[in-house]
Amino acid sequence: MARARELGLRVLGTTSPNPAVGAVVLDASGAVVGEGATSPPGGPHAEVHALAQAGERARGGTAVVTLEPCAHTGRTGPCADALIAAGVARVVVAVPEPTQLAGGGAARLRAAGVDVELGAEQVAAAEGALAGWLTGVQEHRPYVVWKVATTLDGRVAAADGTSRWITGPDARAEVHRLRAGCDAVVVGSGTALADDPQLTVRDAAGADVPRQPLRVVLDRRGRVPATARVHDGAAPTFISAAATPAALLAELFDRDVRRVLLEGGPTLAAAFLAAGLVDEAVVHLAPQLLGAGAAMVGDLGIPTMAAALHLRVVDVTLLGGDVQLRLRPARHTEGRAHDRQDAGGS
Amino acid sequence: MARARELGLRVLGTTSPNPAVGAVVLDASGAVVGEGATSPPGGPHAEVHALAQAGERARGGTAVVTLEPCAHTGRTGPCADALIAAGVARVVVAVPEPTQLAGGGAARLRAAGVDVELGAEQVAAAEGALAGWLTGVQEHRPYVVWKVATTLDGRVAAADGTSRWITGPDARAEVHRLRAGCDAVVVGSGTALADDPQLTVRDAAGADVPRQPLRVVLDRRGRVPATARVHDGAAPTFISAAATPAALLAELFDRDVRRVLLEGGPTLAAAFLAAGLVDEAVVHLAPQLLGAGAAMVGDLGIPTMAAALHLRVVDVTLLGGDVQLRLRPARHTEGRAHDRQDAGGS
Ligand SMILES: NC(=O)c1ccc[n+]([C@@H]2O[C@H](COP(=O)([O-])OP(=O)(O)OC[C@H]3O[C@@H](n4cnc5c(N)ncnc54)[C@H](OP(=O)(O)O)[C@@H]3O)[C@@H](O)[C@H]2O)c1
Ligand SMILES: NC(=O)c1ccc[n+]([C@@H]2O[C@H](COP(=O)([O-])OP(=O)(O)OC[C@H]3O[C@@H](n4cnc5c(N)ncnc54)[C@H](OP(=O)(O)O)[C@@H]3O)[C@@H](O)[C@H]2O)c1
Repeated sequence: MARARELGLRVLGTTSPNPAVGAVVLDASGAVVGEGATSPPGGPHAEVHALAQAGERARGGTAVVTLEPCAHTGRTGPCADALIAAGVARVVVAVPEPTQLAGGGAARLRAAGVDVELGAEQVAAAEGALAGWLTGVQEHRPYVVWKVATTLDGRVAAADGTSRWITGPDARAEVHRLRAGCDAVVVGSGTALADDPQLTVRDAAGADVPRQPLRVVLDRRGRVPATARVHDGAAPTFISAAATPAALLAELFDRDVRRVLLEGGPTLAAAFLAAGLVDEAVVHLAPQLLGAGAAMVGDLGIPTMAAALHLRVVDVTLLGGDVQLRLRPARHTEGRAHDRQDAGGS
Repeated sequence: MARARELGLRVLGTTSPNPAVGAVVLDASGAVVGEGATSPPGGPHAEVHALAQAGERARGGTAVVTLEPCAHTGRTGPCADALIAAGVARVVVAVPEPTQLAGGGAARLRAAGVDVELGAEQVAAAEGALAGWLTGVQEHRPYVVWKVATTLDGRVAAADGTSRWITGPDARAEVHRLRAGCDAVVVGSGTALADDPQLTVRDAAGADVPRQPLRVVLDRRGRVPATARVHDGAAPTFISAAATPAALLAELFDRDVRRVLLEGGPTLAAAFLAAGLVDEAVVHLAPQLLGAGAAMVGDLGIPTMAAALHLRVVDVTLLGGDVQLRLRPARHTEGRAHDRQDAGGS
C-alpha cells in the first residue's frame, strides 16, 4: 500500500478533477507484476494501467489500490469490471469511494467472488495524494496547502520589505515541487505588488516545466498592473476579485481546481486561517533572526493564549540549512491536554 | 569518547568554576574498568574517580578523557601524575588544556613514557559539557544559552500578555533539565513583573531539587517588588542593575558562574543577541498561531534581509507535540551561499 500511495503522489497535480490514485498488482505468489497511477482527465485509471502491465499474471493475484475501484461508466469504463475480467482474486483498498456516483465497486467485485478489504491504511492515503480530491467531494471546495517561508522569529520580510531570500536553495526547490503538485497557486495583491513573483514551476535548471498550475492573484481593487510577471504568458493566470477566501475557492472549484497552494502574504494567510480554510501548512523555517518586519500571519482576532489556533506537527525535515515543518489543523479531540498539576509557575 | 562526553554532561551545572570533564578507563584488553566525572569544586577530578574504580586493572590500559589532564597542584593533585602512578599506557584526550596554569599534562605524561593522543573528537566535546568552561577561559565570561518558547508565528505572549502555556508538559520539563545544567538563570524585570516566575529547578513531581542555580533578575530601575516569587528563598537570588549584558556577565563570572540560561523576554533577548552574547539557542516551538502579541525578539536594528542574524540548526527534536530546535550563531564562513543563478524570482 505504501508503494500504491507513492504512485498516487507522483501524479498529484495532473489528474484534477479526478483523484490521484495509485495501484499495484501482485501475482498469485505475491510478486509485483504491475503498477499504475491515474492519467490526466480522459485517460485510463490507475487500476487499468497496472492490469495492463500485469497481463495474464494478474489472474489469481491481488490488486492494491488507494481508492475503491469505480463501478460507473464515465469517460472510462468501470475499473471494478476490469479487475473482474483480469481474474484478480483479491482487492485491497485504502479509502472507500465516498461518492454515490462511482460507489458500489466493492459490492460489484464481491458479487463476482472477489475478496475485498476496505480501509487498509486509510488515513495515510486520505491525508496523502487523495486529500485534495476528498475535500472536493466532501466540502465542494479545493484542498488548501498554505506555504510560508519565515525566519525563526516569525518574520516573512525585513523592516524595509525585502524578503529575498529567507530560505536557501533546497527549500526554494521544494517550493517548486509543492507547486507542481497543485492545480493553482494563490497570492494576494500585496505579494504581487511587493515581490512581483512569476509563480511558475521551474525545474532544477530554472526552466519552466510543461504543465503549469493556474496562477491566481486575489486583487479586489485591481491594483496589480498589466506589466506584472504573472501576466508574462508563461502559465495561465486568473485575477480574482472574490470577496472572501471561500468565494475564491468556489470560483477555483468550478475551474476543476482540487489542490491550491496558498503562497500569499500575512494578510491573505490570516484571512484563510480565520475562515478555517487551511488544510495543511508547510512552513520553511530559516535559522535567522530579524527582530522587525512583517509577521508571518496578520491579525487573527485572537486576544489570549487560550484562544490560540492549534495545529499539529505532521513531520519535520531538514532542507539544506532550513527546517521544513508540515502541519495540519488540530481537531478538537487532539487539543493539547494541559496538565493542571503544574499550573503553578515556571 | 562518546561515553566520556556523556559522563561530563551528567555533572554539568555542578562543577563550576571547574570544567565538567568525563573520563573512562579501559584495561589492557580494551574492557571498560572505570568511569568518572568531575566532582563539585574541591572534590576529585574525573580521572581520579575513574582510576579509583579501575584499581590495578588500569595498568597497561587506556584512559579516555574529554579534557587534557592537569599538571598543576590545585585543590587536588595533578591528574597527570595520578595516571602515571596507575600505570596507564595510553591517554586519549578530546580538548587540549587551554590554560597555562593547568597545561603541560600531555607533556608530563609523554615524559613518563605514556602514549598521548590529543584532539580526538575535539569539536563535540568542546561544544558539549566543556563549552561553558572554555568560554570562561577564552573570553572571561559565562557561556550563554538562550531559551525561548514561541508559537509558530514567533509570538512569546498573546495580545493580552498571557503566555501560559505556549508549550506542552514535555517541553516544560525539558526547561527544568536545561536549568539544572546551568549555574544561573537570567530574566529581565519585564518577565519578572509579567509572569512572576519562580525560576527554580523542579523534578518530575514538581518538587524543588537540592542544587539550585542562581536566580538573576536584571532590574536597573528596581521595579521588581520584594513580594516577587524569586524572593521566596527556594534558591539563591541576585538582583542586578548592570547596565549591559556584558556587565552582567562580568558580575556573574566573578561569582563563578560559567553557564547561564537566559530566559528573559524579547527585550533582554535582543540586548544579548545584538551584543553577540548568545552562544547557543534552544527554541521550543509550539504548533500554534496567534497573529498578535509580543514577538520573540525585540528590535535588533536590522533594516534589511541581507543583514539578518544567521544561526545554524544543530539539532531538531520533538518534545511531545512541540519541536525543539538547538542552534548556534553561524560563523562568517558558514554564511549561507546564495545561489546567484536563481535570483530571478519566485
Ligand atoms: N516569506 C513568504 O513566504 C512570503 C510569502 C508571500 C509574501 N511575503 C511578503 O509579504 C508581504 C506582502 O504581504 P501582504 O499581506 O500585503 O500580501 P498578501 O496577503 O499576499 O496580499 C494582501 C492583499 O490581498 C488582497 N485580498 C484579496 N482578498 C482578500 C481577502 N479576502 N482578505 C484579505 N486580503 C485580500 C488585499 O488587497 P485588495 O483589498 O486590494 O484585494 C490585501 O491587501 C511582502 O513583503 C512579501 O514579500 C512573504
Ligand atoms: N515565551 C517565552 O519563552 C518567554 C520568556 C520570557 C518572557 N516572556 C514574555 O515576555 C514578556 C516580557 O517581555 P520583556 O521584554 O518586557 O521582558 P524582559 O526582556 O525579561 O525584561 C525587559 C526589561 O529588562 C530590563 N533590562 C535590564 N537590563 C537590560 C538591558 N541591558 N537591555 C534591555 N533591558 C534590560 C529592562 O528594564 P529596566 O530598564 O528597568 O532594567 C527591560 O524593561 C512577557 O509577556 C512574558 O510573558 C516569554
